[in-house]
Amino acid sequence: MLGIENIAIYIPETKKSNYDLKEKFEIDDDFIENKIGVKYHALKDKGFKSSDMCVKAFENLKKISNINVDEIECCIVVTQNPDFNIPHTSAIVHGKLDLPENCAAFDISLGCSGFVYGLSNIISFMKNNDMKKGLLFTSDQYSNIVDENDKNTALLFGDAATVTLISEDATYIPIDFSFGTNGKDYKELICEDTLYMNGRAVFSFTATTAPKHIQALLHKNNLTDEDIQKYYLHQGSKYIVDTIRKRLKVNEDKVPFDMAEYGNTVSSSIPIMLANNMNVMPKGNIVLSAFGVGLSWSSAIIKKIN
Amino acid sequence: MLGIENIAIYIPETKKSNYDLKEKFEIDDDFIENKIGVKYHALKDKGFKSSDMCVKAFENLKKISNINVDEIECCIVVTQNPDFNIPHTSAIVHGKLDLPENCAAFDISLGCSGFVYGLSNIISFMKNNDMKKGLLFTSDQYSNIVDENDKNTALLFGDAATVTLISEDATYIPIDFSFGTNGKDYKELICEDTLYMNGRAVFSFTATTAPKHIQALLHKNNLTDEDIQKYYLHQGSKYIVDTIRKRLKVNEDKVPFDMAEYGNTVSSSIPIMLANNMNVMPKGNIVLSAFGVGLSWSSAIIKKIN
Repeated sequence: MLGIENIAIYIPETKKSNYDLKEKFEIDDDFIENKIGVKYHALKDKGFKSSDMCVKAFENLKKISNINVDEIECCIVVTQNPDFNIPHTSAIVHGKLDLPENCAAFDISLGCSGFVYGLSNIISFMKNNDMKKGLLFTSDQYSNIVDENDKNTALLFGDAATVTLISEDATYIPIDFSFGTNGKDYKELICEDTLYMNGRAVFSFTATTAPKHIQALLHKNNLTDEDIQKYYLHQGSKYIVDTIRKRLKVNEDKVPFDMAEYGNTVSSSIPIMLANNMNVMPKGNIVLSAFGVGLSWSSAIIKKIN
Repeated sequence: MLGIENIAIYIPETKKSNYDLKEKFEIDDDFIENKIGVKYHALKDKGFKSSDMCVKAFENLKKISNINVDEIECCIVVTQNPDFNIPHTSAIVHGKLDLPENCAAFDISLGCSGFVYGLSNIISFMKNNDMKKGLLFTSDQYSNIVDENDKNTALLFGDAATVTLISEDATYIPIDFSFGTNGKDYKELICEDTLYMNGRAVFSFTATTAPKHIQALLHKNNLTDEDIQKYYLHQGSKYIVDTIRKRLKVNEDKVPFDMAEYGNTVSSSIPIMLANNMNVMPKGNIVLSAFGVGLSWSSAIIKKIN
């Protein structure tokens, strides 16, 4: 059965400190540590594009997995910061990694909900086309588009990329997915010239939508909180992760918070957490849930089997 | 079985005549009619964005299909000319069409090969997520990015959008798909500020790759030319369609040429031909094959069953 064999991440070493921005934005340590929860955000090298970040993640994957690039039949890049609009970034990644000619390659444009969508997408596409090995990349560089004077966004976002190796030699298998969209409110999180986020509206949408969405997915699968060992929520901010956890009424140690050192990495936030805990996680069910740009949300139950 | 229930198209009424450009580009009627084969190219209204074109296509779908928008569970937009990079155009379309909250929405970034990829993608995604009705849009407006003084592109591209209704009440069902990528040559067809196409390189790649790709797909499915009633090739230019047909050694009337009045509409070219012949096509197999930006290609066999 197709599932996640391994995940590798790339978070740039350069970090920008929010403690250096306290005066500029009139914020204090409590705001940094307990409200947004971002102490440092990761910053890509100048000139680094989305495909370069994918290549870095792939180099890290090669260190932890035996990869024969000639076996890769599918290469998907989830990004809303493509190298160009024409061609798709996955084609550029395909070229840089020397993937074979019979490899399908396309981009999926989604923001924070992108990894969960992308996971369902690549597994569905590979299964229906009888493919055995594929790569699902996430790669966003909000440092390209954030207005450094906008308190709503300048403290929050970090650059990162991840790559998930999909194969029949799975560590995690998918159990069920659920998706949602509210396109009428798309202007609450949009990039015309620079990124604009109506923080209050996005928070309110997420706090209302995410807990219900997760509970409905559990109910549909006849599962309760007892059957779930971890909830990996999109790391939007500490406040939103805490709020969803409280509304779900689940134990704090089941809901990791893991963005303090690099920020909100958009579609990379969930695979970063999965990767960082791949080897120590016991067998069992994990909930993934993500929400943001679109407005769009997606939740999944995946099961660690190895 | 999930397949194509219906297809609707939107081609803007405004057309730009290549006969008016004869002097500017030093070309004659023979070049217009027999080499590129584009007499007129369709031009969107100023200010019209990708999502507006999708909405127009959807309005045309409503005229030929009974659609209850509350039943739509998946909305995919294939485009490389999105309204914005953030959010995805499918979210905006979702809002404008008043689709329900439980509808999955995402964009696929692909060029000329996008419909064939998108068709496999939406059917795979819906099947694996137990969805019954979905919409696959294609929408590109190269008039936004073409340099009007570039002979290689200014005579060729037309604006269009299409929407394909996917359901279990299928007219066409998918038989098999095949995909390919050569990312090393991505610079042959790229948009940095304006569109650049190395016409000779793209022609050479297509003329070499497409016939072999189609023949391999037929062979894999134990089919010969006798089992195929039509070959719907991406309408890149008359010269490329003719060249592929000759190399395939198939009868001229099996390979429609249908771009003279609106141009190369990128990912919309194949669904436009399918839509225009939906009602008159007898039952049987059809080959789809598309190639372009990426470089990327995809072929499919679909079967008309109703």
